[in-house]
This record gives sequence, structure tokens and C-alpha cells, in this order.
Amino acid sequence: MDAEQSANLWISILYRYRKMFMSKRLEDCGVAGGCPFLILDLYENDGANQEQLAAALKTDKATVARAVQKLEAEGFIRREEDPGDKRAYRVFLTAKGKAAIPSFKSAFAEWNRTLEDGIPEEALAVFRQTLEKMSRNACSAVKAAP
Amino acid sequence: MDAEQSANLWISILYRYRKMFMSKRLEDCGVAGGCPFLILDLYENDGANQEQLAAALKTDKATVARAVQKLEAEGFIRREEDPGDKRAYRVFLTAKGKAAIPSFKSAFAEWNRTLEDGIPEEALAVFRQTLEKMSRNACSAVKAAP
Repeated sequence: MDAEQSANLWISILYRYRKMFMSKRLEDCGVAGGCPFLILDLYENDGANQEQLAAALKTDKATVARAVQKLEAEGFIRREEDPGDKRAYRVFLTAKGKAAIPSFKSAFAEWNRTLEDGIPEEALAVFRQTLEKMSRNACSAVKAAP
Repeated sequence: MDAEQSANLWISILYRYRKMFMSKRLEDCGVAGGCPFLILDLYENDGANQEQLAAALKTDKATVARAVQKLEAEGFIRREEDPGDKRAYRVFLTAKGKAAIPSFKSAFAEWNRTLEDGIPEEALAVFRQTLEKMSRNACSAVKAAP
């Protein structure tokens, strides 16, 4: 594999290993451990509707709907009909959902410390900036595709 | 989400959008389009056994076994008993598998051009180096976990 193909494999490794780490580290959070970004986004945007969640997580509405259904069944979130739009629901963390937040934050912090071990701060800054720009390029390209 | 949590979300976006792009771009390659790294690795290491493939792709043997079974069923690869180890199989690309390689290479090249649009070469070099180091950190950490 050339350097560019390998970069895609490394992205895949970081994705898969982060998921493995999180599901082990967040075992006690049950199904919520599989939706860390949704939980963390709700913590900052409590009451977001499913469309807003899908936009924030750059995923599709069906994926968000499935996650919301599982999280509601396990008591991490609750839904309320949006008074401004009868077809939409606003999503809120329950007390159980809020109580899980510190575990999520410390799991991410631990994972990041693991990844960043031995990497100079200047390289990390360039890395994060480049990663964000690439994600934006990816999102525009997929949106633009027919 | 803080910058470090966001970085994990961006990794997740790059992973998911690359998969979406590849499966669309490699539709004609059928099931092989879902295993681009395995196909590309075999192209360089024809005759690798499944254990070597799992090590190269940093995945588990069960995942490789499932992929190999699907790819064999669709005629992209063939397996031969390893003369040195009766329990192991060596995996080879068939003519159909080899014929698919240019499509894989051009799909990756196109995806990388999309991601890298507007990013200076120096930033890309730091990005790739940091990404590789992070992947190595991730692999060591997961291996070391109980």
C-alpha cells in the first residue's frame, strides 16, 4: 500500500480501536457507550431535535432515530414533541443520561492521552487542524455527489 | 464537545464517508469494494496466510476469515493449503481479483485528492506522520489491555 492508502488504513484503525476501547471502558453505560458523540452533543445542546443531532454528527436521520430509540428504551434520554413542529421531537438527557457524562469525558480523555503519547504539541495542533479540514472536504464531497 | 472529543468525531466522519464513497465508487466490484485494504494488501503480498493478513490490517482473524470466505465465493481470491502448516491457508488474488486492482487504486487516489484539497504539503506530511504514530499507540494500547 502506498502512503495515501496507508493513511486510510490508519484512520480505520483509529476508528475501530476507539470503538473497542469505548465499549469496554463504558460497559456500565450499556447501549449509551455505543453512542458517545450523541450523548456528548446532547449534553451541550439539550433539547436538540433529531435533525439537528444528525447535522451535528454528520450522519443520517435514520441512524439518529435508531440510536435515540435505544437510548430512550434504556432511560438515558427522553423525547418531547416540538411545540413548533408537531412532526419533530426534541431530545433531552435524563438524570441517568447526565450522570453518565463524567464517564464519557474521562474515557475520551484517557483515549486521547493514549493516542497522543510521545507526539509534540505542535504536531498535534497541525494534525487537528488538518483533520478538521479533511472532514469538511469529505462532507462537502459526499453532499455534492449525485 | 471539546477539541479532543471533536477530533474523534472527525476520525469517525473520515472513516464512514470513505466507506460510503468506496462502496459507491466500487459498486461493480461487488463484495470486494467492502474490503479494499485486504485486496490491496494481497496485491503486494500474494500468498499471505490469514494470520498475516489479520496482522497487516490490524484486525482479528475472525473478521479476515469472513472477508476471505465472501471474496472466495465471488471469485476474487482463491485459497491453497499451506504446505508448511496443514491448518493454514495461503490466499491469492485470482485473475478477476487482479483485474479489479486499478479500480481500487484510482478510487483511493480520487478520495485522497478530495480530502487533501486546499491543504499545504507540509501540513499533510505532519498529518500522515502523526496519524501513523497514533495508530501505533492505539494498537499497543489495545494489545496491552487485559
